[in-house]
Amino acid sequence: MDWVLLAPISAFIAILFSIYLYSYVYGKSSGTAKMQEISGAIKEGARTFLKREYKTLAVFVIIMALILTVTLGVGLGMGLEIGLVYIFGAVCSAIAGFLGMEVALIANGRTANAAREGLNKAFPIAFRGGAVMGLSVVGLALLGVSIVYFSTGRPDLVLGFSFGASALALFAKAGGGIYTKTADIGADLVGKVEMDLPEDDPRNPAVIADNVGDNVGDVAGMGADLFDSYVASIMAVMILGASTSLQQSADSSFGDPSAYISLPLIFAGLGIIASIIGVFLVRVGKHGNPGKALNWGTYSTCAILIALTFLITYYLDFPLGIWGALAVGLIAGVIIGITTDYYTSIDRMPAKRTAESSKTGAAINIITGFSYGLISIFPPLLGIALASAIAYFICELTVGAGFGVYGVGMSAVGMLSIVGMIVAGDAYGPIVDNSKGIAEQAGMEEEVIDIADRLDAAGNTAKAITKGFAIGAAGLTVLALLAAYQEIIQTRMNGAQISFDLMNPFVLTGAFIGIAMPALFSAMLMLGVGKNAFRMIEEIRRQFREIPGLKEGKEGVKPDYTKCVDIAAKGALKELLPPSVLIIVVTLAVGFVGQWVASQIGPPYEFGGIQALGGYLGGSIFSGLIFALLMSNSGGLWDNAKKYIEAGHFGGKGSDAHKAAIVGDTVGDPFKDTAGPSLNTMITVMSLVASVFAPLIVAFALLLT
Amino acid sequence: MDWVLLAPISAFIAILFSIYLYSYVYGKSSGTAKMQEISGAIKEGARTFLKREYKTLAVFVIIMALILTVTLGVGLGMGLEIGLVYIFGAVCSAIAGFLGMEVALIANGRTANAAREGLNKAFPIAFRGGAVMGLSVVGLALLGVSIVYFSTGRPDLVLGFSFGASALALFAKAGGGIYTKTADIGADLVGKVEMDLPEDDPRNPAVIADNVGDNVGDVAGMGADLFDSYVASIMAVMILGASTSLQQSADSSFGDPSAYISLPLIFAGLGIIASIIGVFLVRVGKHGNPGKALNWGTYSTCAILIALTFLITYYLDFPLGIWGALAVGLIAGVIIGITTDYYTSIDRMPAKRTAESSKTGAAINIITGFSYGLISIFPPLLGIALASAIAYFICELTVGAGFGVYGVGMSAVGMLSIVGMIVAGDAYGPIVDNSKGIAEQAGMEEEVIDIADRLDAAGNTAKAITKGFAIGAAGLTVLALLAAYQEIIQTRMNGAQISFDLMNPFVLTGAFIGIAMPALFSAMLMLGVGKNAFRMIEEIRRQFREIPGLKEGKEGVKPDYTKCVDIAAKGALKELLPPSVLIIVVTLAVGFVGQWVASQIGPPYEFGGIQALGGYLGGSIFSGLIFALLMSNSGGLWDNAKKYIEAGHFGGKGSDAHKAAIVGDTVGDPFKDTAGPSLNTMITVMSLVASVFAPLIVAFALLLT
Repeated sequence: MDWVLLAPISAFIAILFSIYLYSYVYGKSSGTAKMQEISGAIKEGARTFLKREYKTLAVFVIIMALILTVTLGVGLGMGLEIGLVYIFGAVCSAIAGFLGMEVALIANGRTANAAREGLNKAFPIAFRGGAVMGLSVVGLALLGVSIVYFSTGRPDLVLGFSFGASALALFAKAGGGIYTKTADIGADLVGKVEMDLPEDDPRNPAVIADNVGDNVGDVAGMGADLFDSYVASIMAVMILGASTSLQQSADSSFGDPSAYISLPLIFAGLGIIASIIGVFLVRVGKHGNPGKALNWGTYSTCAILIALTFLITYYLDFPLGIWGALAVGLIAGVIIGITTDYYTSIDRMPAKRTAESSKTGAAINIITGFSYGLISIFPPLLGIALASAIAYFICELTVGAGFGVYGVGMSAVGMLSIVGMIVAGDAYGPIVDNSKGIAEQAGMEEEVIDIADRLDAAGNTAKAITKGFAIGAAGLTVLALLAAYQEIIQTRMNGAQISFDLMNPFVLTGAFIGIAMPALFSAMLMLGVGKNAFRMIEEIRRQFREIPGLKEGKEGVKPDYTKCVDIAAKGALKELLPPSVLIIVVTLAVGFVGQWVASQIGPPYEFGGIQALGGYLGGSIFSGLIFALLMSNSGGLWDNAKKYIEAGHFGGKGSDAHKAAIVGDTVGDPFKDTAGPSLNTMITVMSLVASVFAPLIVAFALLLT
Repeated sequence: MDWVLLAPISAFIAILFSIYLYSYVYGKSSGTAKMQEISGAIKEGARTFLKREYKTLAVFVIIMALILTVTLGVGLGMGLEIGLVYIFGAVCSAIAGFLGMEVALIANGRTANAAREGLNKAFPIAFRGGAVMGLSVVGLALLGVSIVYFSTGRPDLVLGFSFGASALALFAKAGGGIYTKTADIGADLVGKVEMDLPEDDPRNPAVIADNVGDNVGDVAGMGADLFDSYVASIMAVMILGASTSLQQSADSSFGDPSAYISLPLIFAGLGIIASIIGVFLVRVGKHGNPGKALNWGTYSTCAILIALTFLITYYLDFPLGIWGALAVGLIAGVIIGITTDYYTSIDRMPAKRTAESSKTGAAINIITGFSYGLISIFPPLLGIALASAIAYFICELTVGAGFGVYGVGMSAVGMLSIVGMIVAGDAYGPIVDNSKGIAEQAGMEEEVIDIADRLDAAGNTAKAITKGFAIGAAGLTVLALLAAYQEIIQTRMNGAQISFDLMNPFVLTGAFIGIAMPALFSAMLMLGVGKNAFRMIEEIRRQFREIPGLKEGKEGVKPDYTKCVDIAAKGALKELLPPSVLIIVVTLAVGFVGQWVASQIGPPYEFGGIQALGGYLGGSIFSGLIFALLMSNSGGLWDNAKKYIEAGHFGGKGSDAHKAAIVGDTVGDPFKDTAGPSLNTMITVMSLVASVFAPLIVAFALLLT
């Protein structure tokens, strides 16, 4: 049997299972008429956003596909397939996002309804709703990769597929991030502050837009982000596996030279199997702890995967070092998740101290939270550094020279192979968050709301760990992508060695530009939120002014929810385009302009542009990870510091400390939900742009010399 | 004539001139009794701080000198001089700081007094007061370097001298930064917020501590920082000039092999001459613009220096490429300064937009200011990158192979050679700031206060440009230091090539740790400010509680100013020690532990620790510059956004927008005055630690292999 078939088979099984889980969720009662009404409005709003997003995206993808086809396909003779796989990648990711969102939108109301019968009835609906997203992400991703690879046999076309997925991730993550915070800030500033309405009040025209935001940002965004990282890590290892130097140094007793190309596919297939088993292990009793159940699911998935991959590695006679690299990545992911949790969790020192500092005002709250955010950068970076170094040396020393970077890639695959489970836990969060909102708005009894609350709290814990996981995985993936970029360049240059020495002025200049990019990108996103929120605020004020009886809550008077959703969606996509185009253009400019300058200088600097691009990627990885960690963690910390005060500490709700903590939380919102998580995607996109266009840059370089 | 004697001679002239300027300032009237009283209290407070700081520093310096003497001096046979030059460096910098502070403390009252006779009488006192600091910094620095080099002929001992100066810079900058913000926040929170006293009210026990802070942070701190960068850049070029590869590739027609070692000394000497001329060119008429006068001084100093260095380079028959590198650095410094000014200046778009965003609350003000801070990172980084690349290629291509990094160092020397003028303009700021405070507290007429205001506004403009200059100079200097580290390593390893390839796992792991360090360091400083401010607040409250009649302002009742100064000073030094020790220990740990691991792995990774340290320095440079720029600029921006509102926009003083802007300004205080500017010093210190201990690491490496 050809073991590589495990990839499409398990991908197919994952899709079947996600359909089964979808029908399980769908079969549950959708609750009272009031519940259905609210949940229906959210659904409509989310679809409006997705429709707009996919429309804009379609234009973007088609233009890019044309560029790829003309330059690489025709110009360099890589064939018309390059444009097609690019579109295919975007479509697969879009379908996964659409399915995940659809199920989240039906699971929220059903979870709220089932909460009336107890925790053990509500929990599986929410979790399995999340699992639909998780399994359809990995299923469609791995199936897509398999189709491209089996039908063409070319890892470079898998790269094109990956690039297509990244375009969607960028739109879903950054666009969704702007959208969700626009709605959130708009709803809060006019509704809560100006009009003094409670949270989630149906009179607020932005309330549905706000609820939609959770689904758009957290479900569709996170799903597309991990789809992107998942495909990118597998693809990077495939390209590194195709390296001639690696092929030469591989154990000659191992017959098939393509074995190292298809190994990541086998491991990814095993990851899906482990995730499916993990999903079914997550159960909670009537008085159980849903947070523990989720973590138990993650840990057992890891254990199963480690066991399965060991057996297969042993059975297929691959060197055990490769399995070691995978295990290192997986373990590092868990450790990074746990340390991230420490810095943001409500019952730990940083959140408590930040809450305490709110007593002396908003400014001190912000300084304290920001400081802990800065400190929180250290453990995960150390984790990524050590994981990559250990994976490198395990493979380089025990498998063979040239296998080091292959091991780094494999550690990323290890971390990401349980993405099915990770996304399941992550998508659970917004489902229970929404279900809590629906239960409150539908006027349920206190016990039901209490259950919804407990489900929600578990979601926050799971989210912290998966966020750490996502950043760790992105870190290892982009390192693998940097290696893949180098490999593609060297292959295209017939094996010439290209190094990225920090003392080379081209590398250094590239690195300096690279480190500035994540800062520029996140600033543009955050300023975009500000501009978009301003438009939103104008519209909310207009509705309160022009719709008679709305403010007073007159029977039958309803605000125009759709208009708010539409403004937020339109604005988000408008604000998203400039930074997205910027990162692609600057990446190409560094390569091509750098290469032109290098050709003017001549040997030994004749490939300076290629090296500058390497330095640029390195720099963007460094500063991208720094800002992603800083923003995600300090944002989460401010959020929980506020919640800690709301739980009755330091004066509780309404106190001066609480007001100060709200300022911190509002600052943290675009940090943790817009800019921070988009940076993962941004550095992945930049790395993919470099790798995709690498053949063109090499051709340009050779033309000039 | 031996032209290198220009260095000690012009250094000596600078010291003479600074004595002359000191007596000029001293000769002016110190004003009314009230003025003398206030100015006397500030003087006493500043001396208390300096005494404490120098005491703690003495212990630190002696311990470090012993370590150096034992390990390098005795252990590696580098002689007992290493400990002595280290102490000498610290002492020279301390004297410069002391002199600068002393003159600032007498110039503030005298400027306030002279403002009664008009702007053109007051301005020269303040500016010449600043020039005393400027000229004594460059004079003592260059004299110190000359003494060490002429008496020993060893650039590695100049490195020891530089390391000593850096210890003082770290203490002065970071310690002063914690001190000044402790006092500021304490005074504001209890005085302004709780007690509702106006700014600078003499009843506030922390008011003197607050006034002292300006001198401690801005005068002594900035002076020590630039002393440090100035010496480090000259020293780095001397070490690179001693490189054997450079010596071999140098034009053989140029006889003396040590010429390239002493060339930076000659250029620095010319820089002093240009600065002295520049100082005398700064004049302002009765209705003139002091800001323009300051900038005119800076620009003409640059022009004079470019002309002088060209003549000397030509006359001494050095390759003109070296002069080109110097000119590039100088011009880049001016450009970086101007762009920095754009992002923080009160009459530019970013400050206005940030002010406008305050209308929607503190959180949006902070997000907006932070976003522009993120954007402001890009131009200076691009400037540093291009300046270093251009300087590299000018020298590498026109002078000879191996001269590239020498050129980078020379561009840093170019930027820093006008430090005399830069510090003069910079120290002018706190002098006029203090003099404004004194004029207000002493109850001067409105016209006088108006003049003091105009002098102060000019100080802010000058400060923005010099801050940009300082960061640019630090950036180029640390790049030169990285090259110097590599050079020292290679020399010690008898010419073996050590590269810092980003794809090497040791380099990458080092870089990941390195990029986390500036974040960790600045977080510790900011949390230190918080903790120390807390102690201060307790003391201020105690005084108001226990001193009868203080709050009511009863005649003859005075708070205990000294106690507040003492608490701020003691606490600042206490909070400073952990981060200072941390950066030294981690730097050494990366080198030694990394080297131990590398020796276990063996070839081709046997010098992994040395490479990890290179990556570590590179990473810390990247993230250090990012955070330094982000924090300094967003802090300055929030400050000016607040001032813009206070000037009557968006509701003016007391409006909601103003309150929101105050929160931003308070967040910005530790950003721009504690953490941001300390990062320059931090990365310089780390680079120096690596270079100083490089011989020991090499010895360790060779021992293990």
